[in-house]
Amino acid sequence: MPHPEQVPAFADAPLKARYRAVRALSEALVAPLSEADATIQSMEDASPAKWHLAHVTWFWETFLLRDHLAGYALFDERWPFVFNSYYEAEGERIARFSRGMLSRPTLAQVLEWRAHVDAAMELLFDRKELQPLIELGLAHEQQHQELLLTDIKHALFQNPLGVAMWEDTGAAAEAWCDGWFGHPGGVARIGHQEPGFAFDSEGPAHRVLLEPFALSSRLVTNAEWAEFIADGGYETPTLWLSDGWAWVRRDDIRAPLYWREEEHFTHSGWQPRLAEAPVTHISYFEADAFATWSGNRLPTEFEWEAIARGQEGEEQAHDPSGGNQLDSAAPPLPVGSPGLFGDCWQFTRSAYLPYPRFKPAGGAVGEYNGKFMSGQFVLKGASCATARGHSRPSYRNFFYPHQRWQFTGLRLARDV
Amino acid sequence: MPHPEQVPAFADAPLKARYRAVRALSEALVAPLSEADATIQSMEDASPAKWHLAHVTWFWETFLLRDHLAGYALFDERWPFVFNSYYEAEGERIARFSRGMLSRPTLAQVLEWRAHVDAAMELLFDRKELQPLIELGLAHEQQHQELLLTDIKHALFQNPLGVAMWEDTGAAAEAWCDGWFGHPGGVARIGHQEPGFAFDSEGPAHRVLLEPFALSSRLVTNAEWAEFIADGGYETPTLWLSDGWAWVRRDDIRAPLYWREEEHFTHSGWQPRLAEAPVTHISYFEADAFATWSGNRLPTEFEWEAIARGQEGEEQAHDPSGGNQLDSAAPPLPVGSPGLFGDCWQFTRSAYLPYPRFKPAGGAVGEYNGKFMSGQFVLKGASCATARGHSRPSYRNFFYPHQRWQFTGLRLARDV
Amino acid sequence: MPHPEQVPAFADAPLKARYRAVRALSEALVAPLSEADATIQSMEDASPAKWHLAHVTWFWETFLLRDHLAGYALFDERWPFVFNSYYEAEGERIARFSRGMLSRPTLAQVLEWRAHVDAAMELLFDRKELQPLIELGLAHEQQHQELLLTDIKHALFQNPLGVAMWEDTGAAAEAWCDGWFGHPGGVARIGHQEPGFAFDSEGPAHRVLLEPFALSSRLVTNAEWAEFIADGGYETPTLWLSDGWAWVRRDDIRAPLYWREEEHFTHSGWQPRLAEAPVTHISYFEADAFATWSGNRLPTEFEWEAIARGQEGEEQAHDPSGGNQLDSAAPPLPVGSPGLFGDCWQFTRSAYLPYPRFKPAGGAVGEYNGKFMSGQFVLKGASCATARGHSRPSYRNFFYPHQRWQFTGLRLARDV
Amino acid sequence: MPHPEQVPAFADAPLKARYRAVRALSEALVAPLSEADATIQSMEDASPAKWHLAHVTWFWETFLLRDHLAGYALFDERWPFVFNSYYEAEGERIARFSRGMLSRPTLAQVLEWRAHVDAAMELLFDRKELQPLIELGLAHEQQHQELLLTDIKHALFQNPLGVAMWEDTGAAAEAWCDGWFGHPGGVARIGHQEPGFAFDSEGPAHRVLLEPFALSSRLVTNAEWAEFIADGGYETPTLWLSDGWAWVRRDDIRAPLYWREEEHFTHSGWQPRLAEAPVTHISYFEADAFATWSGNRLPTEFEWEAIARGQEGEEQAHDPSGGNQLDSAAPPLPVGSPGLFGDCWQFTRSAYLPYPRFKPAGGAVGEYNGKFMSGQFVLKGASCATARGHSRPSYRNFFYPHQRWQFTGLRLARDV
Repeated sequence: MPHPEQVPAFADAPLKARYRAVRALSEALVAPLSEADATIQSMEDASPAKWHLAHVTWFWETFLLRDHLAGYALFDERWPFVFNSYYEAEGERIARFSRGMLSRPTLAQVLEWRAHVDAAMELLFDRKELQPLIELGLAHEQQHQELLLTDIKHALFQNPLGVAMWEDTGAAAEAWCDGWFGHPGGVARIGHQEPGFAFDSEGPAHRVLLEPFALSSRLVTNAEWAEFIADGGYETPTLWLSDGWAWVRRDDIRAPLYWREEEHFTHSGWQPRLAEAPVTHISYFEADAFATWSGNRLPTEFEWEAIARGQEGEEQAHDPSGGNQLDSAAPPLPVGSPGLFGDCWQFTRSAYLPYPRFKPAGGAVGEYNGKFMSGQFVLKGASCATARGHSRPSYRNFFYPHQRWQFTGLRLARDV
Repeated sequence: MPHPEQVPAFADAPLKARYRAVRALSEALVAPLSEADATIQSMEDASPAKWHLAHVTWFWETFLLRDHLAGYALFDERWPFVFNSYYEAEGERIARFSRGMLSRPTLAQVLEWRAHVDAAMELLFDRKELQPLIELGLAHEQQHQELLLTDIKHALFQNPLGVAMWEDTGAAAEAWCDGWFGHPGGVARIGHQEPGFAFDSEGPAHRVLLEPFALSSRLVTNAEWAEFIADGGYETPTLWLSDGWAWVRRDDIRAPLYWREEEHFTHSGWQPRLAEAPVTHISYFEADAFATWSGNRLPTEFEWEAIARGQEGEEQAHDPSGGNQLDSAAPPLPVGSPGLFGDCWQFTRSAYLPYPRFKPAGGAVGEYNGKFMSGQFVLKGASCATARGHSRPSYRNFFYPHQRWQFTGLRLARDV
Repeated sequence: MPHPEQVPAFADAPLKARYRAVRALSEALVAPLSEADATIQSMEDASPAKWHLAHVTWFWETFLLRDHLAGYALFDERWPFVFNSYYEAEGERIARFSRGMLSRPTLAQVLEWRAHVDAAMELLFDRKELQPLIELGLAHEQQHQELLLTDIKHALFQNPLGVAMWEDTGAAAEAWCDGWFGHPGGVARIGHQEPGFAFDSEGPAHRVLLEPFALSSRLVTNAEWAEFIADGGYETPTLWLSDGWAWVRRDDIRAPLYWREEEHFTHSGWQPRLAEAPVTHISYFEADAFATWSGNRLPTEFEWEAIARGQEGEEQAHDPSGGNQLDSAAPPLPVGSPGLFGDCWQFTRSAYLPYPRFKPAGGAVGEYNGKFMSGQFVLKGASCATARGHSRPSYRNFFYPHQRWQFTGLRLARDV
Repeated sequence: MPHPEQVPAFADAPLKARYRAVRALSEALVAPLSEADATIQSMEDASPAKWHLAHVTWFWETFLLRDHLAGYALFDERWPFVFNSYYEAEGERIARFSRGMLSRPTLAQVLEWRAHVDAAMELLFDRKELQPLIELGLAHEQQHQELLLTDIKHALFQNPLGVAMWEDTGAAAEAWCDGWFGHPGGVARIGHQEPGFAFDSEGPAHRVLLEPFALSSRLVTNAEWAEFIADGGYETPTLWLSDGWAWVRRDDIRAPLYWREEEHFTHSGWQPRLAEAPVTHISYFEADAFATWSGNRLPTEFEWEAIARGQEGEEQAHDPSGGNQLDSAAPPLPVGSPGLFGDCWQFTRSAYLPYPRFKPAGGAVGEYNGKFMSGQFVLKGASCATARGHSRPSYRNFFYPHQRWQFTGLRLARDV
């Protein structure tokens, strides 16, 4: 079963090898799907699996081959119209909810396109000046692998017959170590600051002032969420943000997405829910209400990143506030803390907004992130469906506060 | 190309042979479609081709095999929930717009189900008491063949790449004989009155009083419709019913469905539009506006049927009005008149309502027609997609006044 | 209390006197309302009371004074835009749901306009050629009096404080005589055929063939409706038309409009519901479901009119069917039958469609009725809010099958 | 003309005198309105003027009189249901869009209620422990005065007749001094830190780290906005946030709200637009697009507040970054800078989120601000409709990014 986590991240491999691995994984993910599975679209937020395979290929063909390979001819002149996602600079495209109407081109034709593009791409790997763009293309395709997995899960969920795309692996939930990571506050350096690829919105690196806080050493579990439900969490308006309560009432929300009695829907169909596994498929509204109910709060994206970096040393000495001295008894850094990366995306209470001096890149590629900076919240970490190479402290995922078809969970924070 | 018209109607063939022919045609119609083509759903009014194949099979399995074949076990216990269309008495079913989410069962599984049901059906053909129900099942499957064709046309139309399911046959439009069939008025006998199958809503046969009128000997053509457009037909509110004008404005209607410049969309993709071919894919609202613009009107369903029956003799003598004598110079009866049957369904200005003494059949089968008797208009004739055996004077098709994805056209009438 | 029924119909009074009486009644109806009551609009189907007062005045000013009184100047050039209802030929007008935004002109200004128009109208009563148009204007204003009453009832109903505009008169429900009026079938003459005013859609008079039937001598009562509810009428899908069941589910319909426990909302606020009073404020969908539940059906508009005319004599003899002889033991004609006129409008199962040879009048006035002929059902009789002069057998009221804010009830029919 | 700006803020007056002045102003604002003007509701975001008068009175009656005045009886037991705005802890209330249905109670009754509550309030001013709650009540009523003015403007705007509530005062736009206020960056102290009233969300005061930046010394003008339009601002998707572009397309946005050719709609009806006046009635989406078009950006709420406080001294010395030295040639502080307070609310690019260690107050009053912390942006300053006492650097107004019926404008910022 070609689950993304089981594929080496290849961070140090040559670009060419990484390209091939990423492209192969995309196709492996679709292998268990029928042509029809890969064509249907369950909601406007989600796209068909076949569309994902084609859209990432459009990205390579447009921004690498068309723009940088002399003499390259488009595989099909009419396909950019249907496989452009949202790049306004690249012209008109089909309405988002029409993606599910694309019974043609067939999956076989899309795979043929992929092979065609892959062959042409081989001519570009040695061109140094294109490497940042190729890195972006890889990161882009990896992001779509995660969306492909969450979107197909949502599509299969619509089917009352309980369809599975993988066998159940019978994985057990690990035991969690309860605890809190303390942070004494002070100046923290935030944003992408290491060598290697990052998206534009992860920078520029800059400093922020933090108040002392603590971050839970683990994620909230299904068992805890069941307590929240049993305690009337979904019926108590004072726990909720105003927009969240309106959403609960309008959509008759009573549990995380994919819950049904003692089961939840997975890529392996309906399966028993494990009490100690992290709760997932919750919205920001739900995460915030749970945090309020528990007497805690959500962390900011800066708090989460500071803990993930284990960073409270050097800058601390210069803390202008004078009052937040380094706590010499601070717990060990959370490297390897359960769920920091790889279980669920974790909601923060930070809105997805530009960092100081952020400038979107020029051209169509510049539409990548900046234009989504209203109304969404930042999530940190990485989920079980995220490509391994995407697990870095500066990564900023973002979704609207009602969305929950991603593998979203929560890690509590509190003031100290 | 297994076009429905090219399949013999087999009206006189044994039931068993007709069953086999009808079932085979359903599968032949789907043969040019990919699994994905057969799965997608373009609007709530339309259903996926695969769903049609399955739904008609559900009808046979439910009302014939389950109810009348001792020991028959359902092929899959979970499928009635997804393939029941609207029979309330048969329990819950999926929301109509979720039919497009059924990537499973696969087309192959549905075909396997069909074979299974067909084999079991062989045991029932000799049971006399079941023949009316089998006749109903055949008529039901034939109706769904027409819907399958119009629904898949609508689905393929959504694809901006211009998909075709058949080769273009290059058929030319026939020349039309202009003229009007006159009718002197009087009492006409309406409704199913011959031996042979008919739907419940086609009866009971009864008499209606007609005023003198004339019915056009041909359908309105694309060329005439183009004149209507050129004359500002879609911008002149006084030509339209009030609800029709609201529809034109809200949906920005400017031409029949499937028109694009000099082309129209067909099962063979985009093709040139023939000036002399009957206009089709128009709504009742459009038909009514055109009739007003032309100085004529739509016929009633009774007028249409009276002409189709060539019936103005015997009863005429008893006409209580005294004034509408038989016009001895009346034109020959319209047997074979172009387009009476087989080109387009023809809108009448009659609402789809029960005939006097109409009683729906008992049980779930009784939900067949009666419950749709509000808000819809009767169409007469038959279209190029209608099974041949359905061409009878009493047939009452019905749609809402804004719907136009069927092969709908118009034949004008006028008072004399 | 200036209830419309208590105002003489003045059918034989001179036109001038009738004009004055009708105009005075409109203002008397609004007298108990505050300026704010008269301004608010509770739904798109309803209009503010002040708007009704102004719209009918616009009708007089436009079609009589502007078109026929030399030198007449509009009271305010800008008002036609806001007080035209739907006459396309009279140009643009505000969106229907914006009528509730018209806090200006004030009620006082509208009354001033009315006085101005009334004074000018005095100059036209002697002009013979205008009398049909003046008759139409009177009928139009009387129709709006009924709408004004039902619309303000709906508006006051929105107020959770339980507002009343009149004192309760404490009227008791009369006892009903159970029974059925039989009709032997045959040819009936339908449509306006007497001297005096009628709307265009009430004609032309023409003959229809009826099958034998019986019509209940009384309306269905609140007590009977309570039985229907208690028997699960609103939870039994097989009783309902398909569109009706969808409406019940979507709008969570469980009782007639304005019912609340043992009370109902009236122009005198919340009042106890009388068991023997006719049920009212039901939709066509509800009326049809009740009729099905009771084992009967709704009458056609032709059946209702034939009974109202007591007409089964002369034409009967010429009945071409031969079989429906006059029943010499037929019950007395239903003149004065409870509720035939004056209690509730009574749904028929006839769609609102043109009679044979119907031609809308020319000009803007021709938009009066014909353009509403799709999707609506005919109601016969008259309600407690209808002007007395409108109680005639040929009157055709019409509403969509889900509407129920008018005083709508039902009278059952059955085949015999 | 009782414009709010012309009423002394009374910041130092005794509580009792301030209460009386605030309450009197609310009623003065409504004085030019008819009963109908004060009743209508133009959209869900806006409330009727009468409702505002009543709702603020409900606040006093509920949280002061009911909870703290022994023996106080509610003026009307049924009114809390209709005049509670959103306090979940205070029970059910009418749907927000039903406020426009409240033709009763009448304006006179609401004014009577106000007098009744005012008389009772006289008994509470000397109770020290209630003073913070009374301060909150005053601030609350002042906020509703601004909403009352913007809501009635929106309601009168719906009327095609061009209604005015005040005479035009003929005020000319002042000349603006172009320029930028520079800020060297460093640690700034943010949030309410002075004596006197502030809303809970203005605190706790805390420090933030700023990068060097500059803030425009003036607001963007109508003339500049006209340039943006002429340059295709509303047709260039790359200038817009993704959600903003969707809003522009869906609602066909082409100019600020209330613009019409060379005029704009005001409380004095349609008036010529002054080129040098600040542009107003723009959304966050529009403000952001304009800033992008101009090559600048929106400020953060922290940048705006730091400039408003003229605060870059003491803390600056401790700036841990070392690099952002105080620019000794910095311009004078912007005290009195045009439009900082009193022209328009100014959009910032900061989401409305809790400050560190923010805790909502307990009880129903605690629902005041915290529960709106998702999806909205912070606006700083104050508009021409804001009570004078509300002009303080820490004030945080907040709206959704598409809303623009408030007096909203923009002041540009840039990195240095």
